[in-house]
Amino acid sequence: MAEVSVSLGANKYGKAENRVVRIVRDTPRHEIIDLNVTSQLRGAALVDSYLSGDNSLVVATDTQKNTIFAFAKEYGVSSVEEFLLQLSKHFVEGFEWIEGGLWQAEQYDWERITVGGKPHDHSFVRKGQATRLATVQVIEGATHVTGGVKDLVVLKSTGSEFHGFPRDRYTSLVETDDRIMSTSVTGRWRFLPEAVAAGIDYNALYDKILGILLEQFASVHSLALQQTLFAMGKVAIEQCPELAEVKFAMPNIHHFVYNLEQFGIDNPNEVFHADDRPYGLIEGTIVRDGADPAPEAWLDVPTSV
Amino acid sequence: MAEVSVSLGANKYGKAENRVVRIVRDTPRHEIIDLNVTSQLRGAALVDSYLSGDNSLVVATDTQKNTIFAFAKEYGVSSVEEFLLQLSKHFVEGFEWIEGGLWQAEQYDWERITVGGKPHDHSFVRKGQATRLATVQVIEGATHVTGGVKDLVVLKSTGSEFHGFPRDRYTSLVETDDRIMSTSVTGRWRFLPEAVAAGIDYNALYDKILGILLEQFASVHSLALQQTLFAMGKVAIEQCPELAEVKFAMPNIHHFVYNLEQFGIDNPNEVFHADDRPYGLIEGTIVRDGADPAPEAWLDVPTSV
Amino acid sequence: MAEVSVSLGANKYGKAENRVVRIVRDTPRHEIIDLNVTSQLRGAALVDSYLSGDNSLVVATDTQKNTIFAFAKEYGVSSVEEFLLQLSKHFVEGFEWIEGGLWQAEQYDWERITVGGKPHDHSFVRKGQATRLATVQVIEGATHVTGGVKDLVVLKSTGSEFHGFPRDRYTSLVETDDRIMSTSVTGRWRFLPEAVAAGIDYNALYDKILGILLEQFASVHSLALQQTLFAMGKVAIEQCPELAEVKFAMPNIHHFVYNLEQFGIDNPNEVFHADDRPYGLIEGTIVRDGADPAPEAWLDVPTSV
Amino acid sequence: MAEVSVSLGANKYGKAENRVVRIVRDTPRHEIIDLNVTSQLRGAALVDSYLSGDNSLVVATDTQKNTIFAFAKEYGVSSVEEFLLQLSKHFVEGFEWIEGGLWQAEQYDWERITVGGKPHDHSFVRKGQATRLATVQVIEGATHVTGGVKDLVVLKSTGSEFHGFPRDRYTSLVETDDRIMSTSVTGRWRFLPEAVAAGIDYNALYDKILGILLEQFASVHSLALQQTLFAMGKVAIEQCPELAEVKFAMPNIHHFVYNLEQFGIDNPNEVFHADDRPYGLIEGTIVRDGADPAPEAWLDVPTSV
Repeated sequence: MAEVSVSLGANKYGKAENRVVRIVRDTPRHEIIDLNVTSQLRGAALVDSYLSGDNSLVVATDTQKNTIFAFAKEYGVSSVEEFLLQLSKHFVEGFEWIEGGLWQAEQYDWERITVGGKPHDHSFVRKGQATRLATVQVIEGATHVTGGVKDLVVLKSTGSEFHGFPRDRYTSLVETDDRIMSTSVTGRWRFLPEAVAAGIDYNALYDKILGILLEQFASVHSLALQQTLFAMGKVAIEQCPELAEVKFAMPNIHHFVYNLEQFGIDNPNEVFHADDRPYGLIEGTIVRDGADPAPEAWLDVPTSV
Repeated sequence: MAEVSVSLGANKYGKAENRVVRIVRDTPRHEIIDLNVTSQLRGAALVDSYLSGDNSLVVATDTQKNTIFAFAKEYGVSSVEEFLLQLSKHFVEGFEWIEGGLWQAEQYDWERITVGGKPHDHSFVRKGQATRLATVQVIEGATHVTGGVKDLVVLKSTGSEFHGFPRDRYTSLVETDDRIMSTSVTGRWRFLPEAVAAGIDYNALYDKILGILLEQFASVHSLALQQTLFAMGKVAIEQCPELAEVKFAMPNIHHFVYNLEQFGIDNPNEVFHADDRPYGLIEGTIVRDGADPAPEAWLDVPTSV
Repeated sequence: MAEVSVSLGANKYGKAENRVVRIVRDTPRHEIIDLNVTSQLRGAALVDSYLSGDNSLVVATDTQKNTIFAFAKEYGVSSVEEFLLQLSKHFVEGFEWIEGGLWQAEQYDWERITVGGKPHDHSFVRKGQATRLATVQVIEGATHVTGGVKDLVVLKSTGSEFHGFPRDRYTSLVETDDRIMSTSVTGRWRFLPEAVAAGIDYNALYDKILGILLEQFASVHSLALQQTLFAMGKVAIEQCPELAEVKFAMPNIHHFVYNLEQFGIDNPNEVFHADDRPYGLIEGTIVRDGADPAPEAWLDVPTSV
Repeated sequence: MAEVSVSLGANKYGKAENRVVRIVRDTPRHEIIDLNVTSQLRGAALVDSYLSGDNSLVVATDTQKNTIFAFAKEYGVSSVEEFLLQLSKHFVEGFEWIEGGLWQAEQYDWERITVGGKPHDHSFVRKGQATRLATVQVIEGATHVTGGVKDLVVLKSTGSEFHGFPRDRYTSLVETDDRIMSTSVTGRWRFLPEAVAAGIDYNALYDKILGILLEQFASVHSLALQQTLFAMGKVAIEQCPELAEVKFAMPNIHHFVYNLEQFGIDNPNEVFHADDRPYGLIEGTIVRDGADPAPEAWLDVPTSV
């Protein structure tokens, strides 16, 4: 056998899923921010830890964890995106051999519990509807920021058709002009670098985008989940000048009309079986014309379900 | 070895996790009911299917499934409890050798999507906050009905203490007069048979009980999760004459103050690590004095987390 | 409204899911025992923690956790059943007001990694096939011990029939004399108290029982999953004099013959769709004739899937 | 606001998680192949389904599903990689507007049940140890094939050190020269195009690679998980001329020595707490020097945990 030599390619390392809960208690009316944060670092000089176990440049994953919790106190969490930006700056500027990295977070929303008709000062119930997503990627000297959402489960009980598709030997699907359409939206949006530089009210923008996504899902009379997906991203970009692009992954959660006619019972789209697997899986990116593309922003960012 | 003989003890069989979605579309303003239904039957005569594979009395699990979906059309789902009651009557009254069974369901809530400030007619977003539970048990000639909830995640950022516990060789826990208290409530309540017979507005009662649970969790200044658990059940029974008893299983979701002092940073209950495992697990039943006990109502009903 | 009074019913509390890994390293050939342990205590005197938050008798859940880890060192883990027995004795005998409790565990098996054809001294790969279960219940002055297994997934590609079941209005299932039968076995077996007192080689017995279950599943020509379930428990009791009873919960994991005839392709039981939900759910108990029944042994022990 | 225009960027669509079970029953000694298959298609002409809901070129996701099941019968599944290759050819060659796609699968291994000391003809138990992975990517006129594995959980109870890392303000980790090292290996390997063209015995190669990964994990005295990761990929490439590169994602599953000294008990690396979150997360790629890079092979292929 000829001599074989190998090299280290793409790599990164860090601490995943740090469950940080930050209570703001400056007044009796507390605030809660609930995050799941992952920090990973990259740098050419780190190759020696892979080749020989030389850790002299390895900022320990335990140190990354400590930093995340310390920053939650020292700098607070004005928004999850800004929190990740702060972490990224700390590592990239604080250690000369750290060239970049990927910082990711999930955020869980809480609502105040109502007591005697009024929102309580320090008691909360988890909202449970959708999880907010954010990433900061530092790579090749640039910083990219994305926001996002997952597990936003929506359904429309009419206003959805599917027909006109080609038929081959293996096609058995019946065309329909009235079906349930349901999906669990996973979406991520990349902010324009100039908007990040100018400053963004990320929390307000998240609420605005979610409102747009829901409203479009509801309003579009759908001929295909692809069409609905595109419309949701299109309007988000049109109405939010901060956005460069939006990526969606949408499972088509099949609701099959249950065959009750075999029992002599009419079932005009009233009783459905919600199936688990297999499911359709529709993915698409909607991009603002004229915005600089940035494929490296998405490196290792999970964009499917 | 002496001759060994064995017999069949407790048993039941059926179809689990039927995902029934019922759309009410009598008017353009649709309603959605979203259930996960399990049906299981019992009967002494079914022993032959176990002993010899004689299926002549086995109402097939597939038939149980079909019946669930058919009933969703024929009778509708005025409430999940009434739907299970209808199923139970069908099987117990329709097949003379079926003596009883256990019918269980989960219900997922949906909200209307807001479009242009108004709730949409046929587009919904899954609420995501807590799952409703229900069971109907038919056993020894009696019918028992329970409602319930799970995955109701709550947290209070102050107003919780824990001290005064005994200390032995293995005790290291530090006493505290201010901690985060958080749990994911699993609760089930048994309705009084006379209330079931008289008729209950199960949907309204579910909302009322949830409001009570949340309000008590928020309001009680807690010296132990046990105390909060008891108060939640106590007030539910006091305010709801339909209830015989309430069973809770509450994990104590530990939020540990992160040690930032090692870095010279003060952390007065502001930054916490939310730990996954292990967790405290507190369980308790609150019973109405004078109500007839019914341990058989709970046979095979999961009451822990 | 009339005065309403309530009382505390059944209750227990403790620490759940302690992930204890015990390495035996007395020689260079290490052993690994990998457990997930839950400890919960009961006692009438604990009522005050529920009624008023008086913790003076509450052996803290944190103390229970510490004890579990300490005992893994002090006494070792000769078997998971004996480990739980030791814990139960400690709490019931060590605190006069603790009357009983429930101790549960899962055990994960590991295999040695093979290096150069020989099993390695201290490197392991998780086996992944099935999880071992155990419980110790102390209640009303008696101690009950069970072993068990879950997630043992089996399938036979022929040798299974299902026919002869009654047909009503909602029956559409076609009879079959050749189908795939597949289930994920959850089984728990209660040891005879006299066998526990005499001492049991729990590890050897676990292996023996698993062998019996698999062999019976394979060997029985099945007319119903009920029949296979019963045969598995019957032979286990016949061949293991230590067993009083065996409880099974077996989902019928449906494998549907895919309809390829619509495409002109014959499919004689060769291509199947493995469906997730709904699934059949068959449960049954096989009891040794003459053994004293002990329903309280099963209190709060999960016996379904 | 200036006029905003948007376009469709990267996209694909298909049917996910088709659970195909293929029984080979040409002789009484059956074989079982158990797959979870996802098919997704790409093509510039599909843009109209997104822009206007025009489905005239949309090969329905239902048709993709039917094709998967039909091919399992018509062509069999000699290996999961070859099965995906066959699917990819069918769609790309059969529909002129389909330019490429991504086909993914998981494979679950089964073992024969032993009856009377002999492997049974048609009864199986799921192995449970690790899941096999495969992908075929067709893009820009090229076809890329990868194999892989996930959920291969390994642990070594000694032979692992971690020290020499830099210390900053937030560093608290103590150096160690003896710790447990444990991870759940996710690995994917890309086959050289020339090896794919020449034909590969994918099943034999999978077993060979798994053996190498396990043996290297066991044998390397580890100074860092990075070092172990690199060694595993290096030897795989050295010993398997079919491989172009290997990508790993390895969580560092932390096993913390439990503090028993506070109770006066010595604990020399014998009792550990296996923590869930956070965990270290080490990722790296090992590439064969001289092999053509193919970043597009990995488009949308999940390579993290």
